[in-house]
Amino acid sequence: MSVVDLARFMDDLATESGHAILPFFRAAFGLEDKGRAGGGFDPVTEADRAAEVSLRNMIRRTFPTHGIIGEEFGSDHPEAECTWVLDPIDGTRAFIAGLPSWGTLIGLMHQGVPVRGLMHQPYLGERFSGDGAHALFRGPRGERDLRTRRCEGLAEALLATTDPRLFAEGAEREGFGRVEAAVRMSRYGTDCYAYCMLAAGQIDLVVEAGLKPHDIVALIPIIEGAGGVVTTWEGGPAAAGGRIVAAGDRGLHAAAMAMLNG
Amino acid sequence: MSVVDLARFMDDLATESGHAILPFFRAAFGLEDKGRAGGGFDPVTEADRAAEVSLRNMIRRTFPTHGIIGEEFGSDHPEAECTWVLDPIDGTRAFIAGLPSWGTLIGLMHQGVPVRGLMHQPYLGERFSGDGAHALFRGPRGERDLRTRRCEGLAEALLATTDPRLFAEGAEREGFGRVEAAVRMSRYGTDCYAYCMLAAGQIDLVVEAGLKPHDIVALIPIIEGAGGVVTTWEGGPAAAGGRIVAAGDRGLHAAAMAMLNG
Repeated sequence: MSVVDLARFMDDLATESGHAILPFFRAAFGLEDKGRAGGGFDPVTEADRAAEVSLRNMIRRTFPTHGIIGEEFGSDHPEAECTWVLDPIDGTRAFIAGLPSWGTLIGLMHQGVPVRGLMHQPYLGERFSGDGAHALFRGPRGERDLRTRRCEGLAEALLATTDPRLFAEGAEREGFGRVEAAVRMSRYGTDCYAYCMLAAGQIDLVVEAGLKPHDIVALIPIIEGAGGVVTTWEGGPAAAGGRIVAAGDRGLHAAAMAMLNG
Repeated sequence: MSVVDLARFMDDLATESGHAILPFFRAAFGLEDKGRAGGGFDPVTEADRAAEVSLRNMIRRTFPTHGIIGEEFGSDHPEAECTWVLDPIDGTRAFIAGLPSWGTLIGLMHQGVPVRGLMHQPYLGERFSGDGAHALFRGPRGERDLRTRRCEGLAEALLATTDPRLFAEGAEREGFGRVEAAVRMSRYGTDCYAYCMLAAGQIDLVVEAGLKPHDIVALIPIIEGAGGVVTTWEGGPAAAGGRIVAAGDRGLHAAAMAMLNG
């Protein structure tokens, strides 16, 4: 399959998963009787599963030898040379709350290295994609290349994290606290959007902990393609998840890493 | 001016302010050289001011006797019988970070009581409006009445707040902490969206502190129009801002208020 066809296939995956998810987003909005009357109906789980089933089916049909790692249905040949890493709804709390800051993450690894990634926000019609060398935004108002911005240092940085409670009590929380105290401004509640806004040059730094591979693999080729850096707090490859630090500026990444590790 | 004309006028205000703001949202997105090279150029301040100037001009032309209270340019006859309360960009951190969870707040008070409110998200094309008796959502996919949902108690509640650092150390932070510990789930980084999602029956409870009148006046007729309750932590009128608790369910509001006050 050519590079162009692969990009188109990933767009088809995004489109399909969007069709599966959107009917569940704000599904109860405006209905008279909601509450728990649905008898355990859980829209985010339903949407997550419906989307992952359709993604897995499309991948198996097109690439029967590829591996798949998904949030909902676990791993299928994860040792394959090419493996897809899927999170249909990254940002489940945002989804549940009706906020549009969740996204669908579709990543492709080659020999364990993330080589292509796509973040799709179907409610907004936004797609952020990258291949490690280049990254692109497409939205209802057109498309633009994604480029991270320079940042002189922590005192100038805009920091994002999904939730400060991600960090374990002790050294982890203290490391995050030192960085947060040093930056110009921090913002919570960001999920995958933070990494895409870092790629777009709107946010300088993202610090998180407790991530799974499906939370980060798709985002790595986007961040790197836009000129940014993403690693573990120790500077290792980010693809395994865990404690992650991403920066648009290489010097800022080094400064943040030093401060996280005390 | 008839009620219909007033609703149309508020929609015109929203449309105009959206035109003023949108060129500044993600303005630097994808440009090669951003950084501080703009010489102090601050997109959110520029957008806020441009929008508030156009809102004030439209109101003065149409209602020369009305008062205006705005975030950027202060108060003009705030003692008038009818007074507009404006916040062109509620959620400046979200705006700066490129996240679409900010909104434009346009409220109208009659003898100090909020009687009409509109929240406009021009990037998403969403409008939430209310008059205390009825509330409406309009978006690119159509429109729906807004109705809050029932919630049995704190253990079932989805709580939102913009930032846990809003709460002053001591009794205020402890009060919030007790509520947060009691709920099913909490979500940060929500700004005006949290109140609109409460009106939509997606969120059960919003607790904040340090709000200004322009942060809350426009939202009160939306929340109340959808069947919700919004007051200060002491149960007083919310229009003056300060420490605010909003709930979709009246019993939940009482339970949260009791817990906030220890």
